[in-house]
Amino acid sequence: MSTHSDKRGALYLVPTPLDFGMAQDTPMPPGEWLPAETMAVTSRLTHWITENAKSTRAFLKRVEAVSGLAAPLQAQQIAELPRAAHKKGDHAPQAGNDAEAQALLAPALLGHDVGLVSEAGMPAIADPGSSIVRAAHAMGLRVVPLTGPISLMLALAASGLNGQNFAFVGYVPQETTERAKRLRELEAVALKTGQTQMFIETPYRNVALLQAALQTLHPHTRLAVCSALTLPQQVCRSGLVGEWKRDKRLQESLPLDAPSVFLLGR
Amino acid sequence: MSTHSDKRGALYLVPTPLDFGMAQDTPMPPGEWLPAETMAVTSRLTHWITENAKSTRAFLKRVEAVSGLAAPLQAQQIAELPRAAHKKGDHAPQAGNDAEAQALLAPALLGHDVGLVSEAGMPAIADPGSSIVRAAHAMGLRVVPLTGPISLMLALAASGLNGQNFAFVGYVPQETTERAKRLRELEAVALKTGQTQMFIETPYRNVALLQAALQTLHPHTRLAVCSALTLPQQVCRSGLVGEWKRDKRLQESLPLDAPSVFLLGR
Repeated sequence: MSTHSDKRGALYLVPTPLDFGMAQDTPMPPGEWLPAETMAVTSRLTHWITENAKSTRAFLKRVEAVSGLAAPLQAQQIAELPRAAHKKGDHAPQAGNDAEAQALLAPALLGHDVGLVSEAGMPAIADPGSSIVRAAHAMGLRVVPLTGPISLMLALAASGLNGQNFAFVGYVPQETTERAKRLRELEAVALKTGQTQMFIETPYRNVALLQAALQTLHPHTRLAVCSALTLPQQVCRSGLVGEWKRDKRLQESLPLDAPSVFLLGR
Repeated sequence: MSTHSDKRGALYLVPTPLDFGMAQDTPMPPGEWLPAETMAVTSRLTHWITENAKSTRAFLKRVEAVSGLAAPLQAQQIAELPRAAHKKGDHAPQAGNDAEAQALLAPALLGHDVGLVSEAGMPAIADPGSSIVRAAHAMGLRVVPLTGPISLMLALAASGLNGQNFAFVGYVPQETTERAKRLRELEAVALKTGQTQMFIETPYRNVALLQAALQTLHPHTRLAVCSALTLPQQVCRSGLVGEWKRDKRLQESLPLDAPSVFLLGR
């Protein structure tokens, strides 16, 4: 680790609104969901590392309209994470991610603060980015996380499930038998330890996942689903599996075509 | 579950700044860390459920100075969670929490929106409040989580550890032998499954916890500590345990007397 020198830039973890990338005619100004401190840092940064340069430009355009930018959009330096990082995540150190990540952080050595962003929400949480953060620590750069919406935590708080002991386990398997097996595994951990289990699915499989959960889980297990968080159509529902099956109103107008978070526990 | 009626109030989960309750001569205006939407909802609510009425009044006073309040401070209705919920948490359904929680939500039946707050950060995450949320769902009330700072997630993003599979397990034991045993258990889970393990301690025991972690964990396990999140003295450090031991700069000016989050993984 090198010494922390003021002459080098810091790595800022910049959250983006959750409507990002969602088809919406009238996206809300980003300041509705990003605090003043996050907007101020975003406005003054000129160097970015991102999952997707196109969506980062769209984000910066939205910020520009509200708070201005230190450099015009065309002059912003936007570097993309290696493609391999996108779907599988970039955490595994063995994949040569660390050398690539340090190269992407080169502007910080020249004194530029660098912003890390993902498609929506907080970078490096249920999204790529951790190889960049790890590289920044290895280079002795200051790492500064900024406040913004994090769908997993909005869902956890709204679930009525245990928030003092919880886990997020990523995606569940797509295949029917494997999915049922995984749901039963997660339920067994939750019932035994009291640890709330959180998971996600690609939106077009959300309906199938909810039905699988209702068929597979014990009637007394609590199941919560939060959909379209921070969007106008946002809904969070929570009940015992037996209640979900009896009372169809729990599923009513739950916008499962939008990104959703699933939670189970006791 | 009752039907969702527009005539009844909703339960809003209102995050508060993390400097809340910290001794500071010049606390930042809450809008620095709370987005416009959160500030707007906070300003218009008049009914609250909280861990601590005194600190909620202090929070509302800070909001009043920036955005105004729909009712003067003395007219705000602030109900405290049952005392038992404070330290041990209020999640356990058997403790009669649900009946008490429904009683606290009575204003919502009369059409008042109700805000749930904790001492700092997001209610019901590493803080009491989940019995209230569960009761709201049982009553068929709309539950709306708002965006604000969540120290666990700021720390996770800044740790360089795996953010696609992670768990928060609360406090570790205070007693030396038990603490070492628990740290080894958490390390075993993290190394086996790749799941980042997050935990916390009462601030005055943070120094002892860090030393215990350095003595107990494998040199190749990654350890991260984030202290004083969102405060001016905020520091996040991350390295392999062997690096923490060799390079004292990792511990340099780490404000462990402030609330801190510990993370380990591979």
